[in-house]
Amino acid sequence: MPDNRPTLRPVVDDFFPSLPASIPPPGVSDPFGTQRALEPKGGLPQPARRVDNDFSRLFMGEMLVAVETLNVDAASFRQMEDAAGAGLSEAERDAAVAGAVVATVRERGKQHNPVTGSGGMLLGRVLQLAPGRVRDVVDVGDRIASLVSLSLTPLRIDQVKAVRRASAQIDVEGEAVLFASGAYAKLPPDLPERLALAVLDVAGAAPQVARLVAQRIAGEPTRVVTVVVLGAGGKSGVLCAAEARRTGGARVKVIGVEKHAPFASDLRGLGVCDVVAVTDACDPIAVRRAVLEANGGEEADLVFSCVNVPDAEMSAVLATRDRGTAYFFAMSTSFTKAALGAEGVGKDIDLMIGNGFARGHAEHSLGMMRQMPAIRALFEERYG
Amino acid sequence: MPDNRPTLRPVVDDFFPSLPASIPPPGVSDPFGTQRALEPKGGLPQPARRVDNDFSRLFMGEMLVAVETLNVDAASFRQMEDAAGAGLSEAERDAAVAGAVVATVRERGKQHNPVTGSGGMLLGRVLQLAPGRVRDVVDVGDRIASLVSLSLTPLRIDQVKAVRRASAQIDVEGEAVLFASGAYAKLPPDLPERLALAVLDVAGAAPQVARLVAQRIAGEPTRVVTVVVLGAGGKSGVLCAAEARRTGGARVKVIGVEKHAPFASDLRGLGVCDVVAVTDACDPIAVRRAVLEANGGEEADLVFSCVNVPDAEMSAVLATRDRGTAYFFAMSTSFTKAALGAEGVGKDIDLMIGNGFARGHAEHSLGMMRQMPAIRALFEERYG
Repeated sequence: MPDNRPTLRPVVDDFFPSLPASIPPPGVSDPFGTQRALEPKGGLPQPARRVDNDFSRLFMGEMLVAVETLNVDAASFRQMEDAAGAGLSEAERDAAVAGAVVATVRERGKQHNPVTGSGGMLLGRVLQLAPGRVRDVVDVGDRIASLVSLSLTPLRIDQVKAVRRASAQIDVEGEAVLFASGAYAKLPPDLPERLALAVLDVAGAAPQVARLVAQRIAGEPTRVVTVVVLGAGGKSGVLCAAEARRTGGARVKVIGVEKHAPFASDLRGLGVCDVVAVTDACDPIAVRRAVLEANGGEEADLVFSCVNVPDAEMSAVLATRDRGTAYFFAMSTSFTKAALGAEGVGKDIDLMIGNGFARGHAEHSLGMMRQMPAIRALFEERYG
Repeated sequence: MPDNRPTLRPVVDDFFPSLPASIPPPGVSDPFGTQRALEPKGGLPQPARRVDNDFSRLFMGEMLVAVETLNVDAASFRQMEDAAGAGLSEAERDAAVAGAVVATVRERGKQHNPVTGSGGMLLGRVLQLAPGRVRDVVDVGDRIASLVSLSLTPLRIDQVKAVRRASAQIDVEGEAVLFASGAYAKLPPDLPERLALAVLDVAGAAPQVARLVAQRIAGEPTRVVTVVVLGAGGKSGVLCAAEARRTGGARVKVIGVEKHAPFASDLRGLGVCDVVAVTDACDPIAVRRAVLEANGGEEADLVFSCVNVPDAEMSAVLATRDRGTAYFFAMSTSFTKAALGAEGVGKDIDLMIGNGFARGHAEHSLGMMRQMPAIRALFEERYG
């Protein structure tokens, strides 16, 4: 019987550990993957023009993965299709996209689209765990999804097997490395894969909501805390509204703002909001009026903006009370519009950049699917 | 004897007050100045293509100002010079800039540069305070500096008197209106005007540092809290480092990172930092190493980034400890680079957008000049 186990790769053992405890000498490997940056050498792998994708040896702290599927960032996928030109058959277009991915990975050592700057994530199976890792929740053989961008993930493609346009996915044979600092999730056996991927895509949102709501409630023992979610009927919006209710219970009033009527209706059906306002989150005056109307003339303590279009900054700013917090999850947020906007209207509020990572965020958000069957059903219907 | 007092303008008295207490009917004036937005009507004045600069009547909550000087945003001033073309004499170039400002204000009702999108601020004298204002610290006749952008401030120019290129200032005769929500500062009688303007330009920084340091110290009663300031030798950087020391005393360790050797030397001379590292704040690996070296291998609790060039986000992210805070004051900060950067290296930290406004920020920062003579002397030498 042939031995199907992959050959273990030797591990280069000069390493600066994940937890700061000593000063890293220049040039050793570290949890951020500087050991793999080739241009410029020794920098971070994300901004690097090229990374080392030679997996005949690993460095301390690395996880080697047999890649099955690349979930390409939607903007990147579209760019590669557009660059292929018009008038192609489906097969020709798919081949052009596959060719573009293979060329990028050959040139850069990672699927880091040189035009859009974006990557995506990958699905695969763990082949080897080098020493120097902490907090692993997987063993060799487990299937995982990476939760860090392909734009920083060393990758080698041996063969493209299929291009699935509808989901911007590419099935491949190949290998990749995740660094010690790189987040990932073990694919849960009890949830459909498509549901799990949809939830993992926005896994950071709910844990941040849970923290901020808990903190604010503790600081306001005598009154109900008001939470507004802009774009509350979308994927991250639903999770934010649901988490605000789960964490806050009767101590919070949850106001969902959603422009799209069917999404607003879905949201009402979940019963997690006290009020659902069908309002365009890009109209700050309308949003402010809707929030004041729903909240007895008062602004909100916490406003979470999940609106993935430009120019939603001022709606969050104008809906937030003095010393409240406006938290922006959407990548379409403009730093200067938020900063100068708050200054321009004299709003003394905290403005936060949504961090897609929080310790334990994958388990947290997947757990919501198990505890909240109505939300799971909605997500399976929409994204399953 | 002629009466030199200006004619009082009638005040339109339909107003939704500053403090939320009732629902604003559409179309009345409000503290944000929607009553002056003409295109689109009823929106916020900053994004408006054109605002109403007819000051023959005021609306409730407005402050009428006799304008003396426009402090034009540096990027806007440069754009207007460049647009004038090469090969001009100084007088011709100044006239072209003045002409551009007059044309913009005639067209838009505000000095909102259509190319750069930026404005600046103004110096002037208070002519009239309409009813409906709260928290005013001035009387009619006082000289003030506006602390909101010219890009949202209704303005009328009657005459351009001088263009001062070195300071990007234009002396004018004209009038402007500040809304009830618009921050301003009374020019202090005991500080030189140029010093006051230099400090007011970054007035928001120190109060935010004071809050975050006080909060963090209260949450960590048993150990010294580490504060890192990136770009610590610049104007806002010096104020941040000094405020961290003033608020935290011996409870904080302050590490200043400054690339420019003379600025690093100035900073050492002030004695507010425990360590000053001469390091490029755009090199995240070098910054991380410098911070770990200065701090016994530990990351920092609070990192304030005052580096006004692109690509400084990851330095702040990598220097911040788990559940610490990275606070970005610079307008050159990229929302996506900070958000995706933290996610990419698995840093569970709070990322904050610097809000230029905090209640009482002007008095707070001007007060530092009175209490900290070494910093006042440095600023007078540099910016006086």
